[in-house]
Amino acid sequence: MAKSNTGSAAAAAGKRNSARRAFAYGKVTKKPAAGSKRTQKAKKDNIRIAFLGGMNEIGKNMTLFEYAGDMFLVDCGLAFPGVELLGVDSVIPDFTFVEQNADKIKGIVVTHGHEDHIGGIPYLLKVLNIPVYSTRLTIGLIKGKLQEHGILNRAKLREVKPGDKVKLGKFTVEFIHVNHSIPDAVGLAISCAGGTVIHTGDFKIDTTPVDGDMINLSRFSEYGSKGVLALLQDSTNAERPGYSMSERKVGESFLNLFRKAGKRRIVVATFASNIHRVQQIIDVAKHLRRKVAVVGRSLENLVQVGEELGYLNVPDNILISIDEIRNHSDEKLVIITTGSQGEPMSALTKIANGEHKKVTASPNDYVIISATPIPGNEKMVGNVVNELMKRSVEVIYEKMYEVHVSGHACQEEQKLMMGLIKPKFFIPVHGEQKHLRKHASLAETMGIGKKNIFVGDIGNYIEISDKGIKQLEDVPSGEVYVDGYGVGDVGNIVLKDRKRLAADGIIIIVATIDSETGDVISGPDIVSRGFVYVRESEELINSVRDRALHIIDETYNSRYRDWNSIKTALRDEISHMLYEKTKRSPMILPIIMEV
Amino acid sequence: MAKSNTGSAAAAAGKRNSARRAFAYGKVTKKPAAGSKRTQKAKKDNIRIAFLGGMNEIGKNMTLFEYAGDMFLVDCGLAFPGVELLGVDSVIPDFTFVEQNADKIKGIVVTHGHEDHIGGIPYLLKVLNIPVYSTRLTIGLIKGKLQEHGILNRAKLREVKPGDKVKLGKFTVEFIHVNHSIPDAVGLAISCAGGTVIHTGDFKIDTTPVDGDMINLSRFSEYGSKGVLALLQDSTNAERPGYSMSERKVGESFLNLFRKAGKRRIVVATFASNIHRVQQIIDVAKHLRRKVAVVGRSLENLVQVGEELGYLNVPDNILISIDEIRNHSDEKLVIITTGSQGEPMSALTKIANGEHKKVTASPNDYVIISATPIPGNEKMVGNVVNELMKRSVEVIYEKMYEVHVSGHACQEEQKLMMGLIKPKFFIPVHGEQKHLRKHASLAETMGIGKKNIFVGDIGNYIEISDKGIKQLEDVPSGEVYVDGYGVGDVGNIVLKDRKRLAADGIIIIVATIDSETGDVISGPDIVSRGFVYVRESEELINSVRDRALHIIDETYNSRYRDWNSIKTALRDEISHMLYEKTKRSPMILPIIMEV
Repeated sequence: MAKSNTGSAAAAAGKRNSARRAFAYGKVTKKPAAGSKRTQKAKKDNIRIAFLGGMNEIGKNMTLFEYAGDMFLVDCGLAFPGVELLGVDSVIPDFTFVEQNADKIKGIVVTHGHEDHIGGIPYLLKVLNIPVYSTRLTIGLIKGKLQEHGILNRAKLREVKPGDKVKLGKFTVEFIHVNHSIPDAVGLAISCAGGTVIHTGDFKIDTTPVDGDMINLSRFSEYGSKGVLALLQDSTNAERPGYSMSERKVGESFLNLFRKAGKRRIVVATFASNIHRVQQIIDVAKHLRRKVAVVGRSLENLVQVGEELGYLNVPDNILISIDEIRNHSDEKLVIITTGSQGEPMSALTKIANGEHKKVTASPNDYVIISATPIPGNEKMVGNVVNELMKRSVEVIYEKMYEVHVSGHACQEEQKLMMGLIKPKFFIPVHGEQKHLRKHASLAETMGIGKKNIFVGDIGNYIEISDKGIKQLEDVPSGEVYVDGYGVGDVGNIVLKDRKRLAADGIIIIVATIDSETGDVISGPDIVSRGFVYVRESEELINSVRDRALHIIDETYNSRYRDWNSIKTALRDEISHMLYEKTKRSPMILPIIMEV
Repeated sequence: MAKSNTGSAAAAAGKRNSARRAFAYGKVTKKPAAGSKRTQKAKKDNIRIAFLGGMNEIGKNMTLFEYAGDMFLVDCGLAFPGVELLGVDSVIPDFTFVEQNADKIKGIVVTHGHEDHIGGIPYLLKVLNIPVYSTRLTIGLIKGKLQEHGILNRAKLREVKPGDKVKLGKFTVEFIHVNHSIPDAVGLAISCAGGTVIHTGDFKIDTTPVDGDMINLSRFSEYGSKGVLALLQDSTNAERPGYSMSERKVGESFLNLFRKAGKRRIVVATFASNIHRVQQIIDVAKHLRRKVAVVGRSLENLVQVGEELGYLNVPDNILISIDEIRNHSDEKLVIITTGSQGEPMSALTKIANGEHKKVTASPNDYVIISATPIPGNEKMVGNVVNELMKRSVEVIYEKMYEVHVSGHACQEEQKLMMGLIKPKFFIPVHGEQKHLRKHASLAETMGIGKKNIFVGDIGNYIEISDKGIKQLEDVPSGEVYVDGYGVGDVGNIVLKDRKRLAADGIIIIVATIDSETGDVISGPDIVSRGFVYVRESEELINSVRDRALHIIDETYNSRYRDWNSIKTALRDEISHMLYEKTKRSPMILPIIMEV
């Protein structure tokens, strides 16, 4: 249907060209305007949305908007692999639907610079080199990624400011300033002849943000007054009642705690991307005349980018390199470090384990973990706390004092936004099922009818008209695993093998057979890895060898004479034998060489 | 030193024999009383404690007490392996110190029937078949384990009641009733001529427990009045302020929620061992005229053992088998299930994933997860909640309503016990470093001097006298991994291999070489598992084969002529080549067959 209406919808888009001067950057993708007046058909064109990521999952957020044959994307993030995805470095969305619609996609709009919103962009641009629209810091962070991937030169990066509008085919997208745990985050007002859709991106309402720039509620409200067809809203904190605290609160806590630290050295661990948090640490350090050193690659990058782009205000002579900390007494030092999630390779974890080359923990340290563990990381964070405490370090962590605030709206903020935007339809995004459901029930309490709320899944493809939300046939979507340089070459078969190898190891049975006589002329050799400690299990390995020889002789000579039968017999019988003896199921890999 | 004083300490122990009638069961290990009056030397004998498990860790609790050459154990639990212990089923304490002192150990006293206190007992008794002393339910649960291990017949199980005393060499141990999340839990008053030590075991103070039997604070208090040398106290909840709620509160919540469920079927997930919780579910179900079915093997066992031993009061005609649920309408049913921690193989997880053979989730289900996720399980529990919600099931979970209370004392309870027992020395046990430290600082607020508090580690071996706690040389301690039938045959080398296999898989390079000429007469064959999806990576695999052939030819003919050199060359060069091409490090396993 979309295709047949291209012309008329393009006309509608054309009308908006009069507002061109308002577009700060925005490369407007040109398409011949195939018709110039509204027809009946135009009215039948409806906005469509395909959810390519971020529904029923945390991470790899990606949404596709479509109107009358034109498409654009919002965000393209990655997800961090769960422990069950053995060896996988990151997970990105499936780009099949993007590839199928390569000619229609006008660009990608990015709400902010967190990994779960930008991490997939290098992979996306390798598939389809579309223009990327976002704010200055976000573009700066994307640049770094594209450089690593060696595709910065050919990328089409378009910097915008909040308040700017860009045209993407028949769509106009306005960037609206929101508060979040990284500066320069925006929500989106997406307009076309089919109506206006608001996408909040990740947001919170901070009336006293560190940079003084409160979320532009007025603009959301203006859209609300004009009429909003649908609202897509951040569901992350839908389970949390009340309001999120202001980031500024953390600054007050820092001041109190830094004073408490007395003559001790202060170490603060925080998310590398939280520039405002880093700013507050620097501000308090300055106030208390302490020098600041930064450890951890991602934080060092951030401080550099943040300062370059003007998001971080670093007074002269306050920053020192980590090598210089030895020139200052503990009471004159603050170290900002990565590792607030207990990540195994992070600076804080190394410090806790006594493995950091330049920072040695001592009872004269005072450590503040300025973060809450992300679900799944509780144990890692706990380990870091335990290890630090074993070194008699005082540690402020988790819910002790107010050293962390969430970057996501809690229930009252979510409801407030709904109340301002007054959407006809509500679609909770960015969350697991439990978050989406809770968010949906909040929307009901705001008077949005159950029928007008869509709790979706990735792959869902919907069409929104005044009459309702119609679910179309699902589009391709899913998880693509990135492992080293490989994108998508690790799938379920490989992962299944890795799981088996991880649980019980592997036993390789290798023999050379004379293809004429069927005699085993070398081997069978038994090699195992990850199964048992071989030196202490000689008897077991010998019995495997004896049995293998017996099986080969018997199978090869009497039954078939093909490799597959021998291999199957070896696999089945040795597997059975080992399970009986050890109650374990290592992978059995028979290799028969014929000469 | 302990040895030289055996005689005189035995004399002191002998004095206590006059109180023999008070011992209900207790096989008193006999030792010739080598002296009958106190000597100067006796005064020099001090109580020693070796911490074999449960310090700086959650689980595998095990403590050894020693006085004048006599020893006994308290608890012998297992720990559940962290995700990093690939393929390991459970972790038990290292029994080396027990073996080294086999002749001195008079028995093991068990505080309650949770896995982290009894799970290691079958393995211990295989090493040293000592008498096991505990209360009726605990003994019942241990019996089940010993039967599984085929050693029930030869085990020496001694059932005691709270209030009973048993003699273990020169020690007298009194069992004191405490509240916990399993019935029949006890704390211990451990007396000898060296003084009295109280070990609380796991405990909480429940003034309105389900079985009506409050913790015997009076008895602890009596010991306190007489003078307690040292207190070893459960640290699990040392980070939580206030008091733990009464288990009875959960019953009230159940009643409210069951009413809310209306005409829906109710499913409650809980820990299999929490008999009081199960009792309350049954009671409320009876009140509301619902039948109760139980799913999950461990729960079915519990209901059977609990009923047999009189810990569970099941009214007639209320329990039905899971096969009978089809004969009752949803509004007349309560299903109690395992899986409150989101365990992958549990009944609730199977129900959530639509994989349970007998219970199918529907929008007419109302699920209550009556537990709090144990650190590390948050994600698994979240997954179960999400999957249930996708089936439009209403789920009550985590901190919604009061459907779970902790079985461990919070700060005020811990302080109250310290206040009653008034120990000279305080030793926080059962916890990670952060719990032990917090608990230690609570003790300080109760007026126990810093010098009189010992924050220990497993392997620590201490001697307590009036003068202070003296730390002796550490004893052997650690983790022994149980994998299938194997105990201790999986160690760091095997785990390291499993980790590598899990992350990047394995590549096997196998070739048959003519040992005379050095020619490769078969192969090299390249077999990979868990590395890449081979059908889509033919080119890569071919390049490995070519390079391998080249390396073998070159190495074998020109340089050495020994297997090891060829293997090393293959491993290094192929590894390097693959890392360059894929940024992955699979295990490279060269196998050379000579004919």
